[in-house]
Amino acid sequence: MEFVARLTAVADRMEETLQALLGSTPLDGEIVRPERLVAAMRHASLDGGKRLRPFLVVETAKLFDVEGPGVLRSAAALECVHCYSLVHDDLPAMDDDDLRRGRPTVHRAFDEATAILAGDALLTYAFDILADPATHDDGTVRADLVLCLARASGLGGMAGGQMLDLAAEGRALSEDEILQMQAMKTGYLIRAGVALGAILGGADAETRERLDRYAGAIGNAFQLADDLLDVESEAADMGKATGKDAERGKATLVSLLGVDAAHARLDELIETADACLAPFGDKAAVLAAAARFIAERKS
Amino acid sequence: MEFVARLTAVADRMEETLQALLGSTPLDGEIVRPERLVAAMRHASLDGGKRLRPFLVVETAKLFDVEGPGVLRSAAALECVHCYSLVHDDLPAMDDDDLRRGRPTVHRAFDEATAILAGDALLTYAFDILADPATHDDGTVRADLVLCLARASGLGGMAGGQMLDLAAEGRALSEDEILQMQAMKTGYLIRAGVALGAILGGADAETRERLDRYAGAIGNAFQLADDLLDVESEAADMGKATGKDAERGKATLVSLLGVDAAHARLDELIETADACLAPFGDKAAVLAAAARFIAERKS
Repeated sequence: MEFVARLTAVADRMEETLQALLGSTPLDGEIVRPERLVAAMRHASLDGGKRLRPFLVVETAKLFDVEGPGVLRSAAALECVHCYSLVHDDLPAMDDDDLRRGRPTVHRAFDEATAILAGDALLTYAFDILADPATHDDGTVRADLVLCLARASGLGGMAGGQMLDLAAEGRALSEDEILQMQAMKTGYLIRAGVALGAILGGADAETRERLDRYAGAIGNAFQLADDLLDVESEAADMGKATGKDAERGKATLVSLLGVDAAHARLDELIETADACLAPFGDKAAVLAAAARFIAERKS
Repeated sequence: MEFVARLTAVADRMEETLQALLGSTPLDGEIVRPERLVAAMRHASLDGGKRLRPFLVVETAKLFDVEGPGVLRSAAALECVHCYSLVHDDLPAMDDDDLRRGRPTVHRAFDEATAILAGDALLTYAFDILADPATHDDGTVRADLVLCLARASGLGGMAGGQMLDLAAEGRALSEDEILQMQAMKTGYLIRAGVALGAILGGADAETRERLDRYAGAIGNAFQLADDLLDVESEAADMGKATGKDAERGKATLVSLLGVDAAHARLDELIETADACLAPFGDKAAVLAAAARFIAERKS
């Protein structure tokens, strides 16, 4: 099935799954779901994004012929963490953005307090979803899913990466510092997508490690492509040489390496991704296509 | 052992446990723990508070003769959730407090972005701690601990309660609305303390339900005592009739029922707590003392 069609199909299933998870009816053990909070969580999660991370969960599980509602719930949980991070990143004290994907950010559409709580609730809900027996009947699998996502999202993962990014503002970072910050801030959640799929698939340790190397490669490619896009689309757009990152003095690998070297590194990362996937043969064709999609994206 | 001595002993163990959990050394799967983020998380979590919620975890597990590092880790996880909620509640967009327990709030001691991230990281870490095999060797128990805490903390629990509280500002709430908001905002985490202990203790469903009713009673008592304290300590202090709650126009049961009826209700709640604990006999003496401590506190 053509890659983009597969990506879209997963995105559609994600929309359905998130719609159902973010309904107004309280779950067992919940008293009531305050309307405004649910609305804000829905604003943050529905009708947006390529759903790349959920796609990685679904397609990695599929390598092991594992599919179904539990996989979709796990993918949705990861997306909840991703969406919470965007809500908080957009806050006035953080990146202070009024728009995301062309729509008002949660704190603009609602208010700042609601946005803080919506992010908090989405983060919490991710672990609720994973730990609920509806996701998997094996408690150890559920616990493993939770640990994987929590470790990737926390102080030594995504949240830590955001901290490093904030601390870097105005400073010139070394290549190693940039790589570390990006690996944590962005790479970890992409790796979690693949890792959650591998856990659901029952992969052994060696296979999980191989898939993690694939995920690390595409995570790096994702960020590098993002940074290149910023430089190259501005230049194409307006004849301007500088993009938003440069204006903010934001440290990126492209500003350090230059555009040509950055493109060369992207090619290397695709080769690494391919090599990691090789033992899976044709089954991994979609994941290989995902690597190229990530590296070559123009938006 | 005298109640306060027992409470203090648990608080000491909590300090040790949190110190160890919030160290600088990255865990397996973490790249690095950014210094400033760790410092902010420590500021939010160490050297403060009675550690009432961890106490409930420890003493409930003890009803079933279950003790040890796993219980302390679970108690610490709950305390991380409690502390994250305080960090976010103190933020300028929320309650906008400069001080907590006589010390600068995290956003004042550090900065607002760091405070947002510190709260996020503490919340995430709670689920990491519970899901880690170091807490319990049975994956199903770990998953149950996570689900319990997540459900209590999320959109239908504590976060939802905070949303209701914010939405109530300036409005006159009915008794039912106040009870619901307080049950979610404050009561849920207290119930989670007892519930986590019951899960660790391997309690059956009927026993868990009984203990939950105890927890519900002391949760209500906690809030009622808090509200009474606000009214009565201001009056005692300065000869002023109004307290901080009244100044803010904040809806409390005391403003609705009056001081005498509120005290009478506190007595009823202690009776309910005692009745729930009766089948445990002497083993539950500490939990019965806890109920009285909560109801009668002067700070």
